[in-house]
Amino acid sequence: MSEQNEFKKHMSCALDIGEPLNLLASLTTACNEGYHFVVTKLIHPNHERDLYSKDAPRVIGRTDRLLSSNDWNKLIVCRLSKQFQIDSEIENIREHDKKLLSQELGFACHLYIPAILIKLVQRDNKNLAHLLNCKLQAGASFQVWVETPMVNPAKKSPIVNNEDCDDIWEWWNDFRRYGNYHKRIGLALVMPTDGCMLDDLEIKRWGGEPVKAIIIPTCLFISNQHKQPVLPRVYQEIIKQFLHLDVQYIISGPRFKHTYQQYCSYMGYLGKKLYDQSVIGEFSMGCEDFLQSPLQPLTEHLETPIYEIFEKDSIKYVLYQQAIEKALCDIAKNISPIVVIVVGAGRGPLVQATLNASIITQRKVKVYAVEKNPYAVNTLEERIANEWNDQVTLFNEDMRVCEPPEHADILVSELLGSFGDNELSPECLDGAQRFLKPNGISIPQSYTSYLAPLQSIKLYNEIGMSKTADKTLQVLYETPYVVHLVNAYQITNAKDLFVFEHPNRSDMIINERMRTLKFTAEQNCVLTAFAGFFESVLYKDVILSTNPVTHSRNMVSWFPIMFPLPFPVQVKTNEQIEVTFWRAENNEKVWYEWCLNSPFMGSISNIAGRSYFIKKH
Amino acid sequence: MSEQNEFKKHMSCALDIGEPLNLLASLTTACNEGYHFVVTKLIHPNHERDLYSKDAPRVIGRTDRLLSSNDWNKLIVCRLSKQFQIDSEIENIREHDKKLLSQELGFACHLYIPAILIKLVQRDNKNLAHLLNCKLQAGASFQVWVETPMVNPAKKSPIVNNEDCDDIWEWWNDFRRYGNYHKRIGLALVMPTDGCMLDDLEIKRWGGEPVKAIIIPTCLFISNQHKQPVLPRVYQEIIKQFLHLDVQYIISGPRFKHTYQQYCSYMGYLGKKLYDQSVIGEFSMGCEDFLQSPLQPLTEHLETPIYEIFEKDSIKYVLYQQAIEKALCDIAKNISPIVVIVVGAGRGPLVQATLNASIITQRKVKVYAVEKNPYAVNTLEERIANEWNDQVTLFNEDMRVCEPPEHADILVSELLGSFGDNELSPECLDGAQRFLKPNGISIPQSYTSYLAPLQSIKLYNEIGMSKTADKTLQVLYETPYVVHLVNAYQITNAKDLFVFEHPNRSDMIINERMRTLKFTAEQNCVLTAFAGFFESVLYKDVILSTNPVTHSRNMVSWFPIMFPLPFPVQVKTNEQIEVTFWRAENNEKVWYEWCLNSPFMGSISNIAGRSYFIKKH
Repeated sequence: MSEQNEFKKHMSCALDIGEPLNLLASLTTACNEGYHFVVTKLIHPNHERDLYSKDAPRVIGRTDRLLSSNDWNKLIVCRLSKQFQIDSEIENIREHDKKLLSQELGFACHLYIPAILIKLVQRDNKNLAHLLNCKLQAGASFQVWVETPMVNPAKKSPIVNNEDCDDIWEWWNDFRRYGNYHKRIGLALVMPTDGCMLDDLEIKRWGGEPVKAIIIPTCLFISNQHKQPVLPRVYQEIIKQFLHLDVQYIISGPRFKHTYQQYCSYMGYLGKKLYDQSVIGEFSMGCEDFLQSPLQPLTEHLETPIYEIFEKDSIKYVLYQQAIEKALCDIAKNISPIVVIVVGAGRGPLVQATLNASIITQRKVKVYAVEKNPYAVNTLEERIANEWNDQVTLFNEDMRVCEPPEHADILVSELLGSFGDNELSPECLDGAQRFLKPNGISIPQSYTSYLAPLQSIKLYNEIGMSKTADKTLQVLYETPYVVHLVNAYQITNAKDLFVFEHPNRSDMIINERMRTLKFTAEQNCVLTAFAGFFESVLYKDVILSTNPVTHSRNMVSWFPIMFPLPFPVQVKTNEQIEVTFWRAENNEKVWYEWCLNSPFMGSISNIAGRSYFIKKH
Repeated sequence: MSEQNEFKKHMSCALDIGEPLNLLASLTTACNEGYHFVVTKLIHPNHERDLYSKDAPRVIGRTDRLLSSNDWNKLIVCRLSKQFQIDSEIENIREHDKKLLSQELGFACHLYIPAILIKLVQRDNKNLAHLLNCKLQAGASFQVWVETPMVNPAKKSPIVNNEDCDDIWEWWNDFRRYGNYHKRIGLALVMPTDGCMLDDLEIKRWGGEPVKAIIIPTCLFISNQHKQPVLPRVYQEIIKQFLHLDVQYIISGPRFKHTYQQYCSYMGYLGKKLYDQSVIGEFSMGCEDFLQSPLQPLTEHLETPIYEIFEKDSIKYVLYQQAIEKALCDIAKNISPIVVIVVGAGRGPLVQATLNASIITQRKVKVYAVEKNPYAVNTLEERIANEWNDQVTLFNEDMRVCEPPEHADILVSELLGSFGDNELSPECLDGAQRFLKPNGISIPQSYTSYLAPLQSIKLYNEIGMSKTADKTLQVLYETPYVVHLVNAYQITNAKDLFVFEHPNRSDMIINERMRTLKFTAEQNCVLTAFAGFFESVLYKDVILSTNPVTHSRNMVSWFPIMFPLPFPVQVKTNEQIEVTFWRAENNEKVWYEWCLNSPFMGSISNIAGRSYFIKKH
């Protein structure tokens, strides 16, 4: 793993070598300077063609035998020979350029190059989208990187103009929508050079787009005191935002005070520095945007690697221990030992936290550990024999049926899922609270699920590609996923959805819920899913949160949950996103349903839990 | 690639450490001795359990915290604690053992170990198959390795007995058939120790089975003159047969004159030696049992990597050059220059072979190169300008419509697919022969497809797993695949199927065919597919063959083609395998159909080319 992570920290860097007469020589030089690949024109101007001439030359470009196919495929990304006007309104310009472009795309295919760079020069690029998607459908193996300014050039203009057509993101958004968000059509974002303001919102939105490359004009580099090239901090911050998106960097433009080699080694250095600063630790590296099915711990025994991952999050258990300490201190002094029942003890981390809290608070405890998994019990028995002694008693039973010999002052559990209640913590704790004393304490005391609208074209595509033998697309797009959101843009802050409190002393306990939430989009964007988080009050002021704005510092447990929509929905600035969520149940299972009400009325996803549910038994 | 291949050459070797009291210490020692993993008992005898006792112990084995989950998952393969009699006819023995076994399998799941070793001790293991397949269906992540003697123990007996029940392969065959050949149920074959004869047929049949491991008893090692352990040549030959099947080796038994470390380093040395001797070169390494779709060169332009792979096969072009030399010598002396038309010239290897032959035979030639792919033409133009000069003239057209200015003395082509005619060489050459002089020569002169029955459980499973979004299982099992057959057993020698000759001077050219072939099984086996090969007469005695018994020495082009059956068919010794094959066509396409007639009547696969066809345009 660690080797792989070291590899992930490395920045893949290209040099834009323009249109060299001798490609092999320029490529060799760039590789010797440390670059991983080059960007060049597919067709050198020497091979300019006029397909209307009767004797159109049959030599259309460099010979493929110049490089091995492996080198073409690994080292050469190509720009087209010119800006083809295939969306021109003048038919013969359009048809002529279409013929030329088609030939070039065929040649790119023939050479097996990994990606071509194209530019959009107007709002509507329907015919270009049509032609490119035809090639991809017919089996072209290249990616298409749309070279796009990172900052809306319209902003340069002092005249404020709110028309969409000035927003380059809209050009891109239309273009890729024509092809139904094809997974091999991505972005090569150009860093802004002319000092126009960087808009944080805009950058965040790019974060939810399939960015494949970032183009860094050489004029952005300045010299440090050692006369080495560096990027100003503002540009470093931009790169930081894209660091975990697996982008490649393209150095483009004439060299000034520095050599190309120096630019490349600086990028290597910058990558290491930024990765080391990055909050995403070793823990989650490699999980970026990886779709996981939520656990079903009630019906399936957790396995060793899962327990191990849980236990690695020291922050979570520090918070639990703090909560237990505070609760121990709040129990009347005359009670000794204090009875603590840990339900769902797993391999014992909460038992350990309880014993630690007992020592710190000097309050004597008697711990009952309830665990249904016989293989975790195997571990607990060993810890009782060798670490904990008689202070801990074990019950190998489901907490909903277990009968400990005495009632608890404190009931401790860690049954929360990524959405709080989605691993049936409410149902389990409602069952377990019968052995809590009347004024006993539950840790956690409450938890609240949170929801936020999300744009992630990458994850929208990932869901469709995960199609397995026994699942239809409908099932895949009505199933929630646990996912470490990286290539995603959270459209606005999360709002609270469902609350559960423990112990629940109501006469009639109802864990079904229904609620409608409204969000306002801050800018034009594409809604592809809702992201779910939770906040939990462990005890009094000890809070545990995965909601980005209140996230428990350095805690690594729980990736967000994502509820997909069946297709991407276009949303305009200030438009309302309204969604209704249900938590529903019957004797066998619990499930969620969700329905978009605005910007347009959708249909209800996962009706009757047909595609996804959590089993009770 | 080369790094990956170096890695592939390495032999993964385990030590059977039995039932150590201290697993961690034994594991550490084995790793220090160079072993990659160990085999041990899942449950140490200290943890023997009686589930009928009221106080059945809750500690069932070592604690999972002894190793990290990653180490459990990478380093520990487990034997079960005992031979469970879950197929006993006595109900309470059966039910008790089922309970114990179920617990052990759950524990194996919990620890996340990669594989468990089981033994079959009788012919019928239905209940064991039921229980194991239930666990796998429910999500168990381990592989099951069935520990099986490589040589039928029944052979030890001097009394010849032909009953199946004495053949251990039948035990295995029944067992895995119950679970429909589950891809995670494989074999751990034990090398024979008692000098019983190794039967070549038997070993070859194992080659078509999913062998995961080979168990080498330490008593097989002898000392060489340096007192180092070596395996006798006969055992090396066995290992050689399994070398490319990605098996792991388990050293098992007490050490004699050598240390365990010496056994391990010998295995590493042996691996390197055998790989270096192996006929499978760098060329095909990494392609083992990989399913590829046959090319459609008539409708899709080949790309650079494909041309490059073609051209790497020097043997093929040496044979072509020999054929061209002989043909040149056979042309009347008064004809000069001899007109050679190369149809489907690609990037020019046959043009080069023709020019070489011209120099060697001192017969002047004029070469016309016909190639429809405009991107290959780009390359040919460059070679004409820089290498070949005026001797070569280029036509960028389909050979079926092209009109060269003069007729050819020799027509050279390389249009053969893995099954000979399956890339429409007949149709293309029938079209091109109109510009061959009346007594002109076609190279090749003829080709014949060959067919053989095949057993490959691995490939049967691979086809089912390749299920993609837009293909049904029916389509997948009626499609031929080009595949480098490794984990496969060719049940008997191939027989010739369809013959095509060029030029074809018939009044009415018919390229449709139908023929029935009969094969006789040499031993009990499982028929899963038919393998296809071809032999081609390039010119007179210059033959090019992919049929194993006549294969052109060191030629690497063309992997076999495989026509799958919809499900595995059991075949008995001396039973007849009868199959009917069709080559059919209409205006748009050519396709094959095939139908098993014996050992039972199947239905026709790929009726009307519904699942697979070769497009003519």
